[in-house]
Amino acid sequence: MTESRIEIPARRGKAALVAAGQTVTVINTHGEQVVDTWAFSRADLGEFMSNEHTRAHSLHLIPRPGDILRTNRRRPIMTLIEDTSGGIHDTLIAACDRHRYAFLGVEGHHDNCTDNLRNALQALGLRNKSTPSPLNLFMNVPWADDGSLAFVRPTSEAGQHVSLRAEMDLIVVFSACPQDMIPVNDMKSADAHFTIT
Amino acid sequence: MTESRIEIPARRGKAALVAAGQTVTVINTHGEQVVDTWAFSRADLGEFMSNEHTRAHSLHLIPRPGDILRTNRRRPIMTLIEDTSGGIHDTLIAACDRHRYAFLGVEGHHDNCTDNLRNALQALGLRNKSTPSPLNLFMNVPWADDGSLAFVRPTSEAGQHVSLRAEMDLIVVFSACPQDMIPVNDMKSADAHFTIT
Repeated sequence: MTESRIEIPARRGKAALVAAGQTVTVINTHGEQVVDTWAFSRADLGEFMSNEHTRAHSLHLIPRPGDILRTNRRRPIMTLIEDTSGGIHDTLIAACDRHRYAFLGVEGHHDNCTDNLRNALQALGLRNKSTPSPLNLFMNVPWADDGSLAFVRPTSEAGQHVSLRAEMDLIVVFSACPQDMIPVNDMKSADAHFTIT
Repeated sequence: MTESRIEIPARRGKAALVAAGQTVTVINTHGEQVVDTWAFSRADLGEFMSNEHTRAHSLHLIPRPGDILRTNRRRPIMTLIEDTSGGIHDTLIAACDRHRYAFLGVEGHHDNCTDNLRNALQALGLRNKSTPSPLNLFMNVPWADDGSLAFVRPTSEAGQHVSLRAEMDLIVVFSACPQDMIPVNDMKSADAHFTIT
């Protein structure tokens, strides 16, 4: 058992192997930092945590403590067991990518969560076949009664965390979202950390 | 130009080629029938209509007339141009699949939208690499202020329709959802129709 903190560098991704029964705790080290989160079955990267499958069973737009997060084959992959952040996260918005930043007017390269996912897996010698819709921890996308959405400033504070128990052997991937052009990270990007215990 | 109605058989899928500029009109022939809808780029089935990418730009949980529906590369693939159904649709819930029915207690085969997608494409000699999160036309999954969701009876009536303009050459796929174990189709499944004009 290790409790040493692993860094998710600012604007970058980080992947790690997690065994069934271990707990991954994601720490919003500086506050106001969105952490895009994916989980893939270690046995088959074609099976991954899926927001649209999870919602059909949890019946929650945002996962809450006790909610089982499910794969695209509807198997439990993680359970959200603790959340000290106030419970504001997002499951509705795709990972940012080069197309997103081109759309926002960026010419040339901008760091993005889709590349971070690919690069973090590559660092473990792995390759994803697709970019699943991420669990965007600490991201604040409120909905209105009429179904309107907004990107607004995070409410998460420094040191708050979310703990997820692995329900199968898996690969977890995090990206410290480099979105600095809209207020989802309060217009900046910082590092975050996680532990596996 | 043809205005003849193409059948989406009850509990089955149907795919069709649509050219950029054509309009696909989906008719809820008998009312209260959910029609799972996908669109794939004709040039590359790896590019497809994506709810999580569309929401990041439309900022609507449910597409409305005028909304551009985007691919996983954020390109416009269809525009919702008319909706006589009252505007209740779903973008949150995965297509039903054999795992879903096993979860609900079915032993053996149950028709499902995931198989319908695959079979409808196969009938055109095509093969999907993944099952994108569908646009579930006429499906009624209301959300509450606290993010709770529910599966409830459709509000759509016989003959109501949704029209979608193709923004690229594409393959559209529909499935008359065979879910008859929860009230999303009022506990039954009927045929529906579409036109391409």
